[in-house]
Amino acid sequence: MTPARTDHEARRHDVSEAVWRVLAEHGFAGLTLRAVAAAMGASTGLVTHYFAGKHELIAHALDILETRTRQRPRLKAPASGLPALRAHLLNILPLTSEGVAMNRIWVGSWDVALSDPALFAAQATRYDRIRAVLCTAIEDARRLGELPVEADAQRLAATALSFTHGLVVQALFAPDSFPPEHQIELVDDFLATLAAGAGRPA
Amino acid sequence: MTPARTDHEARRHDVSEAVWRVLAEHGFAGLTLRAVAAAMGASTGLVTHYFAGKHELIAHALDILETRTRQRPRLKAPASGLPALRAHLLNILPLTSEGVAMNRIWVGSWDVALSDPALFAAQATRYDRIRAVLCTAIEDARRLGELPVEADAQRLAATALSFTHGLVVQALFAPDSFPPEHQIELVDDFLATLAAGAGRPA
Repeated sequence: MTPARTDHEARRHDVSEAVWRVLAEHGFAGLTLRAVAAAMGASTGLVTHYFAGKHELIAHALDILETRTRQRPRLKAPASGLPALRAHLLNILPLTSEGVAMNRIWVGSWDVALSDPALFAAQATRYDRIRAVLCTAIEDARRLGELPVEADAQRLAATALSFTHGLVVQALFAPDSFPPEHQIELVDDFLATLAAGAGRPA
Repeated sequence: MTPARTDHEARRHDVSEAVWRVLAEHGFAGLTLRAVAAAMGASTGLVTHYFAGKHELIAHALDILETRTRQRPRLKAPASGLPALRAHLLNILPLTSEGVAMNRIWVGSWDVALSDPALFAAQATRYDRIRAVLCTAIEDARRLGELPVEADAQRLAATALSFTHGLVVQALFAPDSFPPEHQIELVDDFLATLAAGAGRPA
C-alpha cells in the first residue's frame, strides 16, 4: 500500500466520522457539505471532492449507518425461543451512548427515506427482514411451550417490532424517564405478558 | 372585515396548504421556501413575505401539524376503561389517507425535533401528555376488572404508546402489509393480550 493510498483511506475515514458527528448532533436536516466540512475543520471544497451534492451525502450517511449497525457490539442471541427474541429486541434499543447516537440517526433517516423511492424500498426490506428474524424466534418459542400454542407468529413479530421501535422514539425524547434499566424492564414485562397464556388450555 | 384582510387570510391559508403538501410529499428534508413557492405556483419572493427563513418555515409547519392533529376527525373515546384506551390508540394510527399524511409528517418531524431544544421539549411534553391520557384509561380498566389488578398503569401506558408509534412507522413503510383493518386487528390482539390475565387470581 502506497503512502498516498493510506492518506486517502485515512481522509475517507475522517470524512465518515464527520458525517456521523453531524448526524448525531443535527440530524439529516442539518447534514450539509458545509456542516461536514466544519466538523472536520476543513474547507467545503475538500468535502465536495467526496460528495457531488446532498444526495450523495445522504447515501453515504445511510451506508455508514448500515455498516455501523451491522458491526455494533450486541448481545449474542441465544439459539432460540424467548431468550433469542429478548436479545433481538434489546439489541435494537438505545441502551448505550453509541446506541443512542445510532438510533437517533435511524429515527432521523425516516424523514428522508419516506420521500425517496430507493431509500424507502431499502428501509421496507430491512423491516421485513427484522420481522422474519423475530418471527422465527417466536415460532421456536411457541414450539418450546414458552408462548401460547395459539400465538400468531407473524402478528406477534409485527407487534414486537412496533413496540421496540416506538420505545426507541420515547426513550430518545425522554431519556430521563427511560434509562436503560427501565427500557429492559419494559421489554421483560412485554415478553412476560406475551408468555402469560403459555401452558393454559387453549 | 375589509377585502384586504380577507385576501390576506386567504393567502395565508394557501401558504399553509402548500407547506402541508410539500411535507406530505417531500418531508422536512424537502421543505424549502422554493418548494413551497412551487407548490403554490408563486414566486419565492412571495413566500419570503411569510417566512424569514427555514427556521420560521419549520415552526409554521409544526403549528399546522399540531392544529390539524387536534382538529382531525376521530373516534369519540368512550368514557373509560379498555374501550377508551382502544379509541385513543386507533386515533393515532394511519387508518385514512389524511391519517397517513399526518403520520408521515409527524414521523418526519422527529428528525428536526431531536436536534432543536425547543422542538424537542415540545415533543417530549406532547408524549408525556399522551401517556398520561392512556394511563388514566388503563387505571380505569384495572378498576373495572378489564385488566389484571397487578397491571402497572404507567408502564402499560409507555408500552401501549410504544406499540402504537412503532406500528405507525411499520405501516408507513409497508402500507400493503399493514392496511387499516390489519392495524386494527393488531391493536385488538395487543389489548386482548394485556387483558388476558384479568379475573385470574393474582
